[in-house]
Amino acid sequence: MSKALDLHKNNKGKVGTHLKVEINSLEDLSLAYTPGVAEPCLEISKDESLAYEYTSKGNTVAIITDGTAVLGLGDIGPLASIPVMEGKAALFKRFADIDAVAICIDEKDDDKLVEMISKMTATFGGINLEDIAAPRCFEIERKLQEKVNIPVFHDDQHGTAIVVSAAIINALKLANKNISDVKIVISGAGAAGTAIAKLLKSMNANNIIMVDREGAISSKNISSNKKDLLTYTNPNDESGSLKEVIVDADIFIGVSAPKLLNRDDISKMKENAIVFALANPVPEILYEEAKAGNALIVGTGRSDFPNQINNILAFPGVFKGALAARATYISEEMKVAAVEALASYIKDEDLREDYVIASIFDEGITDLVAESVKNAWRNKK
Amino acid sequence: MSKALDLHKNNKGKVGTHLKVEINSLEDLSLAYTPGVAEPCLEISKDESLAYEYTSKGNTVAIITDGTAVLGLGDIGPLASIPVMEGKAALFKRFADIDAVAICIDEKDDDKLVEMISKMTATFGGINLEDIAAPRCFEIERKLQEKVNIPVFHDDQHGTAIVVSAAIINALKLANKNISDVKIVISGAGAAGTAIAKLLKSMNANNIIMVDREGAISSKNISSNKKDLLTYTNPNDESGSLKEVIVDADIFIGVSAPKLLNRDDISKMKENAIVFALANPVPEILYEEAKAGNALIVGTGRSDFPNQINNILAFPGVFKGALAARATYISEEMKVAAVEALASYIKDEDLREDYVIASIFDEGITDLVAESVKNAWRNKK
Repeated sequence: MSKALDLHKNNKGKVGTHLKVEINSLEDLSLAYTPGVAEPCLEISKDESLAYEYTSKGNTVAIITDGTAVLGLGDIGPLASIPVMEGKAALFKRFADIDAVAICIDEKDDDKLVEMISKMTATFGGINLEDIAAPRCFEIERKLQEKVNIPVFHDDQHGTAIVVSAAIINALKLANKNISDVKIVISGAGAAGTAIAKLLKSMNANNIIMVDREGAISSKNISSNKKDLLTYTNPNDESGSLKEVIVDADIFIGVSAPKLLNRDDISKMKENAIVFALANPVPEILYEEAKAGNALIVGTGRSDFPNQINNILAFPGVFKGALAARATYISEEMKVAAVEALASYIKDEDLREDYVIASIFDEGITDLVAESVKNAWRNKK
Repeated sequence: MSKALDLHKNNKGKVGTHLKVEINSLEDLSLAYTPGVAEPCLEISKDESLAYEYTSKGNTVAIITDGTAVLGLGDIGPLASIPVMEGKAALFKRFADIDAVAICIDEKDDDKLVEMISKMTATFGGINLEDIAAPRCFEIERKLQEKVNIPVFHDDQHGTAIVVSAAIINALKLANKNISDVKIVISGAGAAGTAIAKLLKSMNANNIIMVDREGAISSKNISSNKKDLLTYTNPNDESGSLKEVIVDADIFIGVSAPKLLNRDDISKMKENAIVFALANPVPEILYEEAKAGNALIVGTGRSDFPNQINNILAFPGVFKGALAARATYISEEMKVAAVEALASYIKDEDLREDYVIASIFDEGITDLVAESVKNAWRNKK
């Protein structure tokens, strides 16, 4: 049996519950349970905000999936998705001391799923949507956030977008380029690609070209569910294959499929090219290959190469900050604040081509991001 | 501020999560999360039963309420019910080492509630329904159990019934009476009263009279939703008020309202009368008053009098046993097994009028009940 299977089997999962209070006497019991427990119940029934004072709500996040896009495994269903969701709960605890609960829902009708989730938020301070297939994930997140007054965050979209954007801010410093001047090609127009484009746009990127299996998304290649993309990408309406539009690009971001590019493609990018090839485990172009193509900075999703783009750098701090602020949603400003905090973790003098983004075990990242996200919410109000 | 409010505020609730695995290195991460986590996902997608091997499912219970009948506070809603549900989660941990998750659902349509719950069972090995108002709770439990393959247990019904029944078995030994011969009057025909009647019936009680606000439930006093009760209670079709039908009863069980009886009423019961007055905090008749009325054995729901009837004696062991057996529902035989185990905790020679049921901090109760419940499932198969 593999080490991963062993780990899961020996521990029967990865997360359990623990008591925050002692229950060792009838008096303990009379305070934590009946009759004393009636008091916080009554207080909350008079003032709903007191749920954050008297219960775990304010530090508890629901990790919710429908099991339709689990890792790269696809639609393996709610039951088979549990190890990922429990893993995520473990990461919430480990990196943000947040209590997270995995809930895997067997419902593929979007509106029903949204209604279900919206009606079970009482015990949760936030909702992390996970591994829900695109394009359903966009509408599900939007509709759910309209219905609930706690933050909803689809990590596959925004977590990835935040970390990529932070790495790009730092990479652009080394490349000595301005985000508003560069041409950015994003391969993959699913959850992650779309969110990356949106976030970079709100950070003043003006020339983003999204590419899907049919090539650049332009007036010549646009399906109905991707129409919205053209309102903020491809200002020059470039068309053609990935290999065509990557010519003269400053930045390539891959959130698509293995081995789409080779060193020649990279060598046709602008000088000081930035390449984030995030398909996992096999990237759009291997690290060494991109370097050989003369890229200045290369990042992947893998921990065995420099500049790992890892969502763990974002979601723990985003939720910690949002919960601390009691934010009712995650605003664009909060995402940008997370990007800036994460980028700032590496001081300018410490930036190197192989260190444009922090490593996940670097100390203090979660709190830095959390503080920034919290302030972004408070300043906005 | 009261001690109970203090406890809740200082700890921000009562239950959190904890890691069952270490995540202190990239290797740890690669096993507990990507890429290693894909392996248990794939195994489960091939064989669903492996969810019990590779995840926390087998030790995790969802505590689900709609907040419609919380303690004696009534319909205070999902948010205000959190302290009770979290308290219950704390009891699951403390008394059975089960990881329980509170989910408070804002849905009052029975069928929608059942559908919602049935679609979110993946991460749970069992469902504890809590504080759902009667008579809705009966249909909700039945319909839900039909839809899911994990045990569903409405503790307000069956937990109470199990503990009352265990106390009655022991009390009858002291009273030197046989359950099939005695006249039992139950005041209160809601969740608890109905379940107590059913369980006592399946333990061979032949003469049970249920009493609601309008008096004994008989052919002269029967509302449509209580019709089913007459198929197993009141064989002699007695009618009249509580004070009338309690005359010559051997056992009184109150799960209704404060101060319905006085010592004179108790003195009209048969010799060696057994009185369990469980309305909380003020029982149907006070302990001393019932004793003064010449009851042999008196129990209440309170910890400050002898013979406390407390659900904590039942539900931790019932779930622990059901989870260990991977039972797909809680059978009548499993409930009876829990009753017998709980009753047997006190050896015959140790039985006293003021000790017919164990105290919740007595050692080993949960495991005794669990073992018995587990065996009842296995023997049945």
